[in-house]
Amino acid sequence: MISAANPILTTHWLDQVNWSEDGLAPVVTQDHNTGRILMQAWVNREALSLTLSEKRAVYWSRSRGKLWRKGEESGHVQTLHDILLDCDGDALCYVVEQIGGIACHTGRQSCFYRRLEESGWQVTDAVIKSPDAIYAGGRKSHE
Amino acid sequence: MISAANPILTTHWLDQVNWSEDGLAPVVTQDHNTGRILMQAWVNREALSLTLSEKRAVYWSRSRGKLWRKGEESGHVQTLHDILLDCDGDALCYVVEQIGGIACHTGRQSCFYRRLEESGWQVTDAVIKSPDAIYAGGRKSHE
Repeated sequence: MISAANPILTTHWLDQVNWSEDGLAPVVTQDHNTGRILMQAWVNREALSLTLSEKRAVYWSRSRGKLWRKGEESGHVQTLHDILLDCDGDALCYVVEQIGGIACHTGRQSCFYRRLEESGWQVTDAVIKSPDAIYAGGRKSHE
Repeated sequence: MISAANPILTTHWLDQVNWSEDGLAPVVTQDHNTGRILMQAWVNREALSLTLSEKRAVYWSRSRGKLWRKGEESGHVQTLHDILLDCDGDALCYVVEQIGGIACHTGRQSCFYRRLEESGWQVTDAVIKSPDAIYAGGRKSHE
């Protein structure tokens, strides 16, 4: 874990990520306490840099074309524990503490709440909090 | 877990994946026993279908432009435990048993063996088996 008191001063670490042609990299987010995979999203250079400096998960929303500070609307902030990089340098992992215990915009713990069964995709997780209750403005789409 | 004795006969479940314009979806692979994230890769419709029918992780290699049966060269097959789908339907998770305990082409347990520290990316995992020993033909790049 990187302490806030001793930040990385150079941006060399950002250059070591093999960004795609559109400047993105996939990131998978894992719960530090349970090990559960919470979500998969995307980052650009700025989002990754902000994740380190703000000690919370920041993504690049491809659908909205803007930075997405996870929890900015829902309050379900992901405080940063670690950032991992894979062998090819083209995929990242955020290890986080999930505030509120809800990562998904549907009100579930994880976005990966469907499992393939004989009958097709089956929902494995109950809704902990309804999207209506999470999003004051009625927002129900993915952040 | 889906039993081999009772396969899903329709391909409806494949249609419920929101494939990208180039027909791919990212997949994150998690170790069933340890919960560790082993790798991040890509699948197309055929790779995903084969993963179910062959009960082992199959990917689409973007660099080689062909199907990639994980372990076909290294022997480090990933036997399938579960397939998960996320809320948006555009990301998958393979939950697997990692044969040989090595997922990475560098000979490490996981491809995510670098962690961001004050000094930059630091290697967290030892090499369990050298790539020379894994790949008879001297192959050392990502499968």
